[in-house]
Amino acid sequence: MAASAPVDIRDWIRDIPDFPKPGILFKDITPLLGHPEAFQASIDRLEAEYAGKGIDVIAAAEARGFIFGAPLALRIGAGFVPIRKPGKLPYATIAQEYALEYGNDRLEVHSDALGPGKKVLLIDDVLATGGTMCACRDLVKSTGADLVACAFVIELSFLGGRPKLEPCDVFSLITY
Amino acid sequence: MAASAPVDIRDWIRDIPDFPKPGILFKDITPLLGHPEAFQASIDRLEAEYAGKGIDVIAAAEARGFIFGAPLALRIGAGFVPIRKPGKLPYATIAQEYALEYGNDRLEVHSDALGPGKKVLLIDDVLATGGTMCACRDLVKSTGADLVACAFVIELSFLGGRPKLEPCDVFSLITY
Repeated sequence: MAASAPVDIRDWIRDIPDFPKPGILFKDITPLLGHPEAFQASIDRLEAEYAGKGIDVIAAAEARGFIFGAPLALRIGAGFVPIRKPGKLPYATIAQEYALEYGNDRLEVHSDALGPGKKVLLIDDVLATGGTMCACRDLVKSTGADLVACAFVIELSFLGGRPKLEPCDVFSLITY
Repeated sequence: MAASAPVDIRDWIRDIPDFPKPGILFKDITPLLGHPEAFQASIDRLEAEYAGKGIDVIAAAEARGFIFGAPLALRIGAGFVPIRKPGKLPYATIAQEYALEYGNDRLEVHSDALGPGKKVLLIDDVLATGGTMCACRDLVKSTGADLVACAFVIELSFLGGRPKLEPCDVFSLITY
């Protein structure tokens, strides 16, 4: 039996116009998640990038970050640490404030989850303006942990997130 | 080298008193997630239960459900379908209302994600009173899909969730 062509994960990203508000073209990952070969391929590529790099922890912000972070942690034998909205984590937390278009929001992580000596990879589905990931980066660094890279499935390069994260290493599977 | 004893996932669940409110003893799964062997063992046991059963889709409600649902979907070659709070999913949705202690809440799924002929497994981290999972069950069934089972890492049997879900098959890794 001939091997079938590898799946192109780009084929499984759906454009949604005017979401979450007029003028925004949203990149919807749910077709990719619903297609086993495409979802598998996305995790395979992340695994190929980060396996054997000595990463101790994959950390990801709720909720879509969990969908890629948890499988990748299992694949590379790392722990998984959830970063959450205020009040969601039950144990003692440390927090990072960040600016939204109007007002501020906050992300939290358990105070015993990270720390000096831990090699951490941050992951999210989409890099847009970078606000959430910059807050995650600052949160990880505030614990004294060693942030290896910020990884994404999709990077919307025209929104300028990457320069805000550098000099941290930034990796993405698909760039628009 | 002698094989080490298998990890007991129960050892990696932490009790948090008075969360989210006084009198509640919260079962915190974050130590399990942070311990690679324990997290792996929990997914191994779910895979052993559901591999080869012809499941097309794993569906899970945000946010902690994603942490177990996404890896399990990849392990058994199923698609992953997120069930989300109102306004989070970008495409056309169908919704299910459910009662909270005070007032109502709503869960949504993409209208093209499920449907007749799809064999669906629902998963969440904890079965407590069953309110969220009952809403997920009703949502899945309203699409005409075939709900195979509701699976959990932890079941708090004294809170009576299981009888509300039956006759649907209910499976849990740990019961308190």
